[in-house]
Amino acid sequence: MDPQETIARTLRASGQVLIVCHLGPDGDCLGAGLALAGALERIGVDATVASEDGVPDSLAFLPGASRVVRGVPDALGIPVAIALECSTLDRAGGLAPALERAGTLIAIDHHGERPQDAQLTYWDPDAAAVGELVMDLIAHLGVAVDRPIATCLLAALVTDTGVFRYANTTPRTLRLAAELIERGASLGEVVRAVYEEQPAPAVRLLGHALVASQLLESGAVAMTAVTPAMLASAGAGPDDVSGIAAALRTISGVRLAVVLEDRGNTVRVSIRTRDGVRADLMAHALGGGGHARAAGAEMSCRIEEAVPRVRSAASRAVRSVGDDA
Amino acid sequence: MDPQETIARTLRASGQVLIVCHLGPDGDCLGAGLALAGALERIGVDATVASEDGVPDSLAFLPGASRVVRGVPDALGIPVAIALECSTLDRAGGLAPALERAGTLIAIDHHGERPQDAQLTYWDPDAAAVGELVMDLIAHLGVAVDRPIATCLLAALVTDTGVFRYANTTPRTLRLAAELIERGASLGEVVRAVYEEQPAPAVRLLGHALVASQLLESGAVAMTAVTPAMLASAGAGPDDVSGIAAALRTISGVRLAVVLEDRGNTVRVSIRTRDGVRADLMAHALGGGGHARAAGAEMSCRIEEAVPRVRSAASRAVRSVGDDA
Repeated sequence: MDPQETIARTLRASGQVLIVCHLGPDGDCLGAGLALAGALERIGVDATVASEDGVPDSLAFLPGASRVVRGVPDALGIPVAIALECSTLDRAGGLAPALERAGTLIAIDHHGERPQDAQLTYWDPDAAAVGELVMDLIAHLGVAVDRPIATCLLAALVTDTGVFRYANTTPRTLRLAAELIERGASLGEVVRAVYEEQPAPAVRLLGHALVASQLLESGAVAMTAVTPAMLASAGAGPDDVSGIAAALRTISGVRLAVVLEDRGNTVRVSIRTRDGVRADLMAHALGGGGHARAAGAEMSCRIEEAVPRVRSAASRAVRSVGDDA
Repeated sequence: MDPQETIARTLRASGQVLIVCHLGPDGDCLGAGLALAGALERIGVDATVASEDGVPDSLAFLPGASRVVRGVPDALGIPVAIALECSTLDRAGGLAPALERAGTLIAIDHHGERPQDAQLTYWDPDAAAVGELVMDLIAHLGVAVDRPIATCLLAALVTDTGVFRYANTTPRTLRLAAELIERGASLGEVVRAVYEEQPAPAVRLLGHALVASQLLESGAVAMTAVTPAMLASAGAGPDDVSGIAAALRTISGVRLAVVLEDRGNTVRVSIRTRDGVRADLMAHALGGGGHARAAGAEMSCRIEEAVPRVRSAASRAVRSVGDDA
């Protein structure tokens, strides 16, 4: 039997299901979780969606977002729990114990490593988003996708593919999105909520960081530093730094973009790469980690000391393509 | 008979076809034109693609781009010509006379106004891109879409929808894109060529313009001015100004973004709107024109005089939603 059919039978037979998102939940995890909870309720199964970090503002538009809880009572009985995108249970933060004590633990994930610890696992690393797997699971539950469920699932697909731009986007992703729009989801609403409601300070900070950017290694590396003065001038906070490295990576010829954020006695480093340049290896060299194209590190030093180390790590990273990639 | 079937019969019966793009051709027009030319050649019809403005650098990756000609000899016999996205023939610039003297003129378009002047017209304003119509036409020609044709058509769909972000994106668009990827087109290659090969000076200029941006009308209007000093500092040229208004429009709460480009004795104004604010009406008030969400004007005055006029036109535009929209 397909894992999704086994999981669907288990869920249908359960009166109550806890769905848990990973720490720092994104639109894919929350969208998939809320869609699945909505589908379970249509067939009379009580579903709770939990996220220790709550719901980011940009995802508050998701139908059902206000029902997401940050924790569950210790005494709560948990016959069935679903861990969404948690390769290990510690990815659920303070909700890990609730997953551990569930009668049946189900893991659903599309990341590179097969999730551990679950009795039932639906894992497909070829899926662009866990929302694709949940959409399939909802079909196995026999629930028709309505507008709120479609909106949540479309948000899942859109956020994990950068609106169908990333390399994980497949023909399946596009066809599922087409179906969700026909089921009532508004692509414009989702795109706008997630990508076109930038805080004004973040946009001004991006401006400062772009002005200060430099090209190194014959244009293969773009580097910039975010200073406390820039944050003050833009009225921005640390959350507004994300996105700068991705913007630098769109410069023609740039294969590695790196942003240093001067935090006084520490420096946060954000790395984005393409063309086989390994962000994770560069991050490791600086004491951090991450993915092949997106990684980061936190350096315990002052910016003056961090800059030359980051520069030389970046140079090594772009020069070593073909060796390590 | 469907217009596309009539057109397909006409094309199949012709030994030679001229395909003409509009002035300032975009990825949709050039991608659709090159795809159609490729399909015609598969069935033994000689096809020429002409664009008076040639091919922009960002579209040089399109298979067949090097075959695009800027003009056709006066003496050339033109049994059949196709005008792509030319609501009137003057949109073809210096190629208009060639269209006029064609034995049979075919118009293919998806814009709001039905094209004039053609003996055969395939017009569908519900299509996101003229590439959708050409894909349908290629099916009527009985030509199997191969990798080069698929790449051209995917570029058409991607550029006219901003990679499936704009409101014109439909389930059909997404399904056609899925099919094109299955036919060998690389979404990653197309997205990168069109959107992620920004000239470094343009990115730095964007930075300067964002830093200088101001919010007006309680945050509903974002406004900035590009000065000659900014262009010099960024090493940028006038072509690098495009994109700034669209970036400002992503600020939360902004419904109208306007960029003034100081050119000494003239000022170029670029306007982008959302939420029903009418860019075209504001542009008209300044002596220009355009579409509901994207418009512009060229003012014959100095920047000091332009700023207050643009400000008050912007204020009127955001305040009048509901009156004119």
